[in-house]
Amino acid sequence: MKFRRSGRLIDMTHYFLQNPQRLIPLTYFADKYNSAKSSISEDMAIIKHTFEQQGVGTLLTLPGAAGGVKFIPKASVEEAKGFIDELCGMMASPERLLPGGYLYLTDILGNPRVVNKIGRLFASVYAERKIDVVMTVATKGIPLAYAVAQFLDVPVVIVRKDSKVTEGSTVSINYVSGSSKRIQTMLLAKRSLETGSNVLIIDDFMKAGGTVNGMISLLEEFQAKVAGIGVLVESEDIEERLVDEYISLVKLTDVNVKEKQINVKEGNYFAHL
Amino acid sequence: MKFRRSGRLIDMTHYFLQNPQRLIPLTYFADKYNSAKSSISEDMAIIKHTFEQQGVGTLLTLPGAAGGVKFIPKASVEEAKGFIDELCGMMASPERLLPGGYLYLTDILGNPRVVNKIGRLFASVYAERKIDVVMTVATKGIPLAYAVAQFLDVPVVIVRKDSKVTEGSTVSINYVSGSSKRIQTMLLAKRSLETGSNVLIIDDFMKAGGTVNGMISLLEEFQAKVAGIGVLVESEDIEERLVDEYISLVKLTDVNVKEKQINVKEGNYFAHL
Repeated sequence: MKFRRSGRLIDMTHYFLQNPQRLIPLTYFADKYNSAKSSISEDMAIIKHTFEQQGVGTLLTLPGAAGGVKFIPKASVEEAKGFIDELCGMMASPERLLPGGYLYLTDILGNPRVVNKIGRLFASVYAERKIDVVMTVATKGIPLAYAVAQFLDVPVVIVRKDSKVTEGSTVSINYVSGSSKRIQTMLLAKRSLETGSNVLIIDDFMKAGGTVNGMISLLEEFQAKVAGIGVLVESEDIEERLVDEYISLVKLTDVNVKEKQINVKEGNYFAHL
Repeated sequence: MKFRRSGRLIDMTHYFLQNPQRLIPLTYFADKYNSAKSSISEDMAIIKHTFEQQGVGTLLTLPGAAGGVKFIPKASVEEAKGFIDELCGMMASPERLLPGGYLYLTDILGNPRVVNKIGRLFASVYAERKIDVVMTVATKGIPLAYAVAQFLDVPVVIVRKDSKVTEGSTVSINYVSGSSKRIQTMLLAKRSLETGSNVLIIDDFMKAGGTVNGMISLLEEFQAKVAGIGVLVESEDIEERLVDEYISLVKLTDVNVKEKQINVKEGNYFAHL
């Protein structure tokens, strides 16, 4: 099949967006479109320019026989600013307040469009680091973890608080919940994580950090390394944070259950760009 | 900012892929690119042609003042055939067999690329039906539900088997698990589903269909309608199926735990195209 430039640009754009972080040899496109490599290089220059101009990401060209081109999704600072502002606006609504100072986030986390944007933001920060897998804990963190993982092109592993027959043998640890100080259990299927993996931890909400800390302990059992920690919302209202280095999009400050008041502001995201 | 056709094609392709099922007025593009509507129409004809040729989907143009263009993601029959074959190959491996005739699917469900393809296949079937929301039950079905929902541009609601403080008030029902015949409970946050919604149920695994049946009962409590049921794997090895109409990608037949043998074949997906 013969492609004109316009058809190639559309199809290549689609291919790059479906295959982020993957090294694609130029010959793949040259063969697919039955075109000279020089034409493909020109196409890629146009796509790279447009992607960068529009804040979609960039194309990275690696020279040599083993080389090729890689699409790196990157949210622009302006896009991140605008989106985090929007998130803060959504979260500040007093109807979100639940007993115990928790927030109702189910509608936000239930919107695939919002979840994908959150994923793009985290993936932008970790785009250049070595990440083998994204880890989260059931249930709320799952959509966020997949959204991040899809842009990084890595698998997701899910830590559970209950054992399921369909996971096979598991490794479990006990951890202390930071806010309630209760001892809890979390577990991960043995087969699901390789020794020595570089793991990005993603979760929806962090108070004292007990759950994240539990995941870190679990990683030690697998001799895996923490490559990063990203949370959608951090709560400022805590005595002692158990986790030091993390990225948050939104920070919850001054929750007043009695007065039904919530104050939210942007998290520490921009300090990590 | 002035765009040449090549830049417009790349940026429009990106925009369509990020905004499936959304009606976009032509003026949106004309304004963004500072171009005549006639040029935008030509661009769209090229994109439509390439999308259809490459099995990405199609563009639907609605005429009139309230009109515009909509990207409908559609997997081609060949792509679906190839992918379902691949899934069958992955699932037939005897190491997947777990006690009780269950299959270890964690690695398959942990791969965002595979999960997205599953989502595209289901969304292709339901692209023309009225779907307001995708529903699933925690935990395994969650990534699949999001993958489908993102292509349909609708939210996800998650049914749980345990109540969480961060969900607010809930509606719960009791149901009988089809295979174990035990009575179980499932619940859904009151705020998460509107009365009268058209709901697409998505799950990873269906044996007798007790869980899906439970979700149907729960929908009745919300006066919501079942618009469709999609499961990744159905197990043939059951006495009586509690659910009649559903779409499956893979069918599990003759699981022999003793001999460590699994037989899988394609599900009823192609009967629904």
